[in-house]
Amino acid sequence: MAASKLFNFSAGPATLPARVLERASEAVRELRGSAHAPHAEGIGLSLLEISHRSADFTAILERATALCHEVLEIPSTHAVVFLQGGASQQFAMVPMNLARTDKAAAFIDTGVWSKKAIRESKLQQETLVAASSGDTGYDRIPAVPELEAAKTSYLHIHGTQWRELPQVADVPVVADLSSDIGCHPMDFSRLALGYAGAQKNLGPSGVTLVFIEREFLASLEAREQVPYFFRYATHVEKQSVYNTPNTFGVLVLQLVLEWLRDEGGLEAAGRRNREKAALLYDHLDASSLFVPHAQPGHRSLMNVRWSADGAPEAEREAITQRLLAEAKAAGLVNLKGHRSVGGFRASIYNAFPLEGVRALVEFLREFEARA
Amino acid sequence: MAASKLFNFSAGPATLPARVLERASEAVRELRGSAHAPHAEGIGLSLLEISHRSADFTAILERATALCHEVLEIPSTHAVVFLQGGASQQFAMVPMNLARTDKAAAFIDTGVWSKKAIRESKLQQETLVAASSGDTGYDRIPAVPELEAAKTSYLHIHGTQWRELPQVADVPVVADLSSDIGCHPMDFSRLALGYAGAQKNLGPSGVTLVFIEREFLASLEAREQVPYFFRYATHVEKQSVYNTPNTFGVLVLQLVLEWLRDEGGLEAAGRRNREKAALLYDHLDASSLFVPHAQPGHRSLMNVRWSADGAPEAEREAITQRLLAEAKAAGLVNLKGHRSVGGFRASIYNAFPLEGVRALVEFLREFEARA
Repeated sequence: MAASKLFNFSAGPATLPARVLERASEAVRELRGSAHAPHAEGIGLSLLEISHRSADFTAILERATALCHEVLEIPSTHAVVFLQGGASQQFAMVPMNLARTDKAAAFIDTGVWSKKAIRESKLQQETLVAASSGDTGYDRIPAVPELEAAKTSYLHIHGTQWRELPQVADVPVVADLSSDIGCHPMDFSRLALGYAGAQKNLGPSGVTLVFIEREFLASLEAREQVPYFFRYATHVEKQSVYNTPNTFGVLVLQLVLEWLRDEGGLEAAGRRNREKAALLYDHLDASSLFVPHAQPGHRSLMNVRWSADGAPEAEREAITQRLLAEAKAAGLVNLKGHRSVGGFRASIYNAFPLEGVRALVEFLREFEARA
Repeated sequence: MAASKLFNFSAGPATLPARVLERASEAVRELRGSAHAPHAEGIGLSLLEISHRSADFTAILERATALCHEVLEIPSTHAVVFLQGGASQQFAMVPMNLARTDKAAAFIDTGVWSKKAIRESKLQQETLVAASSGDTGYDRIPAVPELEAAKTSYLHIHGTQWRELPQVADVPVVADLSSDIGCHPMDFSRLALGYAGAQKNLGPSGVTLVFIEREFLASLEAREQVPYFFRYATHVEKQSVYNTPNTFGVLVLQLVLEWLRDEGGLEAAGRRNREKAALLYDHLDASSLFVPHAQPGHRSLMNVRWSADGAPEAEREAITQRLLAEAKAAGLVNLKGHRSVGGFRASIYNAFPLEGVRALVEFLREFEARA
């Protein structure tokens, strides 16, 4: 498999387990192990060629849904659906479904993704930025202020990793979990609605996991002008087959969750991810050339950002470019920071191996010694 | 490959060319032949693991777009984008983008898909059914009546195959091409907007081809309450990477269009599809047991519907079930009609082989002789 040759720090679509890629590749040739083939025989058709209403695909969809509850620990009080369009589509769908004329939506602004969601929200409803870490370059998670339930329809959070999901009395919480889901145990019972584009920790691009508390869904104000297709109720009622889902994406998600379960579930994933992240943050904290972006206590286990700000300002850009080129030559690829902020970013999602982090730390040590 | 064992008449996701499945399967293990690997070497990573903004994926996206113009003959006056959510999402997005307060949208009702789109349209705007073939069970394409341009924002068509796309003076035409695109040459310059879920003739589920005339897009009334994510202008401006597209779906679509080009393009596809369809319709027309659904002159080359209505009414259901079971045992799978109408349906898209149609006709002949 390809994974042995390169360490891929891509922020998404991101590294997937070699075993998952192997089985997904097989399923594109011929699907096996379905309802029709309990002995894991091939069904004679590619996964890409079978109806989303076939018994074979229904078995995949049901297994993927069950694994979301079992492995990701989404409570049984919440319905799970697989939609399309990623988190960006959810930024529009959340206000379409949750906006109220008598209340405002509150956001915690933690950076680029919050801004994109706030922009969509403002088109549709009164929108309040309840707290922001923008004044310090989004280097932390701001404290959640008191919110008045009578005036707040919901609280929407994004971006930089929350160690603990917030709880606000009588205000439903909505979370963009794209970067975090599956990386360690989280108490999803605190959320009215959670969503995640799969392309970071769960699978390929083109499939979005959405879960919504059934009681909360039932309590939503009917908004008759919202297209049926963009109502959560439509997809919950039809259990993800109101229309044709991304069948390949759902299969890969199922395979990723089976892998995660076999590797010990969220507890074990959390241990592995804390070990990987600590290795890298400890090195960055000790370096005189590199400066980690997020403050201790506010650091993501999944996306590690840093800069060469220890160097004189005039040299930083040249050092950054040289590091990226040398890292690539050494098989450490996709370390460039997001185009909006620059610097470096190492995305080290669940499937990213510890030896890749070790190789990066060793490379950074040697680079700094030579610089 | 699996395709040699079974003939799969699924209406979608549907049969894909064996060569495409082979290459798609390879790309899930390791992508090759990209901008970084001009000699078709592997890049060391799975397609599923690379960023949608990487040079490798950008090359795929650009090639897929170019092939839509070259092979599908979408005019250069029209912008091509790859969205998600299938035709069902377009049923909602079309009115979001095209509705006008001073005009009505006109539909030609040709069956289940029209109904789904009309239902979405009615939520958003004045909606007029200009013609319907519902009174004869949707067995034909109704004539398009005169439409007053001053009162009609656009004409929306669906479903059963149109031999020629309609033209109405000064009224933009919007077409759901999910079943037809790529099956024979069509004059897309007649359309202001066309769309197709890929899972029938173009690739896997989870990617939607949309093309829109640039002048028409520029002329649309600004509707400020429409979410940015659901505006065509957003995706045209960002050339399909406003958000993360279904990267695997776009690759498979590219491979399908390369296959279609290598097989002689739309002219040759039209010849092959006419031959396949004629073989089946001729047999059904001559049969005393089977009754084809659509009237001559209104028949789809892609989806052939028929029933056992030549049998006494009391026996039809038993005959239908027996035929489906025996066909499956003979390797002719997924012949069951749409759950809303019953009977039989053979979807014989581009990648469905002539020998599969021959095998079906032979099976039907023997079945009828025994019946």
